[in-house]
Amino acid sequence: MEVNYKSLISKNCKNIPTSFVREILAVCEQPDMISFAGGLPNPTCFPAEQMKQAFIQIMENEGAETLQYAGSQGYLPLRQWICDRYNSKYGLSISPENILITNGSQQALDLIGKLLINPGDPLMMEKPSYLGAIQAFSAYRPEFHQITLNSDGLDLNELEDTILKTESQVLYGIPNFQNPTGITYSAETRENLAILLDWHNILFVEDDPYGEIRFEGKFQAPVFALNPDHTIWCGSFSKMISPGLRTGWICVPKELMPYLLRIKQATDLHTNNVVQRIIYRFLTDNNLEDHLCKVRLAYKAQKDCMIESIRKHFPEEISYTNPEGGMFIWATLPESMNSEALIQKAIQEKVVFVPGKSFFTADEGQRNMRLNYSNSSEEMIEEGIKRLGTIIKKAHKKTSIRASMAG
Amino acid sequence: MEVNYKSLISKNCKNIPTSFVREILAVCEQPDMISFAGGLPNPTCFPAEQMKQAFIQIMENEGAETLQYAGSQGYLPLRQWICDRYNSKYGLSISPENILITNGSQQALDLIGKLLINPGDPLMMEKPSYLGAIQAFSAYRPEFHQITLNSDGLDLNELEDTILKTESQVLYGIPNFQNPTGITYSAETRENLAILLDWHNILFVEDDPYGEIRFEGKFQAPVFALNPDHTIWCGSFSKMISPGLRTGWICVPKELMPYLLRIKQATDLHTNNVVQRIIYRFLTDNNLEDHLCKVRLAYKAQKDCMIESIRKHFPEEISYTNPEGGMFIWATLPESMNSEALIQKAIQEKVVFVPGKSFFTADEGQRNMRLNYSNSSEEMIEEGIKRLGTIIKKAHKKTSIRASMAG
Repeated sequence: MEVNYKSLISKNCKNIPTSFVREILAVCEQPDMISFAGGLPNPTCFPAEQMKQAFIQIMENEGAETLQYAGSQGYLPLRQWICDRYNSKYGLSISPENILITNGSQQALDLIGKLLINPGDPLMMEKPSYLGAIQAFSAYRPEFHQITLNSDGLDLNELEDTILKTESQVLYGIPNFQNPTGITYSAETRENLAILLDWHNILFVEDDPYGEIRFEGKFQAPVFALNPDHTIWCGSFSKMISPGLRTGWICVPKELMPYLLRIKQATDLHTNNVVQRIIYRFLTDNNLEDHLCKVRLAYKAQKDCMIESIRKHFPEEISYTNPEGGMFIWATLPESMNSEALIQKAIQEKVVFVPGKSFFTADEGQRNMRLNYSNSSEEMIEEGIKRLGTIIKKAHKKTSIRASMAG
Repeated sequence: MEVNYKSLISKNCKNIPTSFVREILAVCEQPDMISFAGGLPNPTCFPAEQMKQAFIQIMENEGAETLQYAGSQGYLPLRQWICDRYNSKYGLSISPENILITNGSQQALDLIGKLLINPGDPLMMEKPSYLGAIQAFSAYRPEFHQITLNSDGLDLNELEDTILKTESQVLYGIPNFQNPTGITYSAETRENLAILLDWHNILFVEDDPYGEIRFEGKFQAPVFALNPDHTIWCGSFSKMISPGLRTGWICVPKELMPYLLRIKQATDLHTNNVVQRIIYRFLTDNNLEDHLCKVRLAYKAQKDCMIESIRKHFPEEISYTNPEGGMFIWATLPESMNSEALIQKAIQEKVVFVPGKSFFTADEGQRNMRLNYSNSSEEMIEEGIKRLGTIIKKAHKKTSIRASMAG
């Protein structure tokens, strides 16, 4: 009998949106393509030599333990390192009992989705929000409610309205250099949000993969520092060290850990033991601040170059964010223009970005484009933005003429 | 406001049973404890030196690519290696398009659960079955139907009855050296199962983590080889090389791959790139057959030692399997005895096993015990089985006296 595979696919799977970035991966990988589409860190900053030294140490001194099964919660010294760093950096008081090591922060989002979401449950997030989070949570079929993200962070009035209207209990957000917008919550927004979480008894899933990559302005403590009982804080080594390591962590109130551990066991037993130990050795045998300095300087140069190129080559009517860290700039086209209509032209001209639509759970974002600067040289950034500028100007002229004829 | 964390936990999470093995981990790790409880491979076989050499090569020649984000489906040369090996070993005709690399086969089961299971869907599996599979699938809330496992494999009459009664479309099983029983499907059972899959249009999830660890008898092709359209075949490097690597794979009909890829993206983007490349280098720079020979010889010696010790120290009324590969022996106590009642005594005497109950979805298995031999020296195996024998004999005497007094 022929198999009707499609009829076997679960509702969960069918509900996961596809990723524009992953779908055009083949396009992005063409050798002469300039890609602002992905979210790839700058590979010149990867510490390959130090990783090699770390691994040699591990295989020579603790090979058998490293290659064996390990605890689901993660390598204790690495969990302790995370606590020590952030207790001292942000004045937290977390212990290894609060930490679960995950396969990057994408897995953190999946585990949290599994932990908290029943089909049809309301789930609040920023508008726009990280596509990977929309994908991870969609697999558990929540009802999404997106809340406007202003230049100083989440719109807290709209948040309260949404809480009252939907009886939501969970909010997901990225307070530092948000993906896709590059926006950072102000200190005031953080403080007020922490109060509202308490007031309405909301659990905040604080995704913080870029926190260490601040290249301008002052470091700000996470919302978790202000309200640890109402916050699940997710961190990652992907941008600090390297994403190929697929290692991140979740910091949760202790009461949630037994549930999270049961989920981690059921999902993949434990995070890669080899890589957890490599990271720990790297962190203890090297000066992390020196390494992060290098990363921040590289990202700042790339961001500055992209901002300058946008000023030079984009029409004045286009607005854009100017992030203090992270990897993305968010541009907004004039009304009547459409970023999806531009992408085909852009691919022809060998430059690619992500149209805004991907970051909304409803049909919005037609005027937006996400631009990544961390994976291109300054020459490529200038050239790519120049090409995009030409395409946008051409399209803009057309729509303006059309508008004036209609008018 | 105080957070009522428990009220936030999803139905999915609440439905996952806890793992006896993980719960008594602290007990197992006591230095003088003899543990037959876990499913840990023999660490003396781990190729730490070769892993070190592989990693040095990688960091020196392909550091930047290795540390960057990678494709969701997995490292192409590794997928090609898997195809080449099994196309030649079992006469398959699979290509890298059929293969997805996962974080060990536990993640394979989770991804398959997400792919196929809606809440309440019937799901068939062997009775008893692998606890990790019960956990992974439970997170998607199927209705389990366990089907008797005979000494030559799944009871196919009972399978047909269950299909007709429940309208199940999916069957999960472990044809080689099953966990927990050590049972292997006969060639005849495989052939008849392959026909039934076709007949009733059933998808078979064939879990095969131990296939390469056959130390007696003849290698048998997987059911996948007999009916590739109706089979999802899961393999793993955990027992072939090392479980700390957390690397396995799923081999699926091409039609299912786009769905599985979407799920893998949403779940954790991709499997650890560093470790995928270490494994590939290890496999190409070393003679795998030499390595597997070493592993098989070690396991055979341990299994033989445990069987001999059982013959010597267990009362005659206890029956047990004699596996041709893998890591487990399944013992059945005489009627009226209970393995859960024995475990506390056993822990006192510094020996531990897994009571049978964990491997059943209903309240069964009271007379069974799962014994792992791969992680103890021969001295420890003999001593541990001797201690268990003493405990069992004492308990058996008590229940016999009670029975004769009642009679």
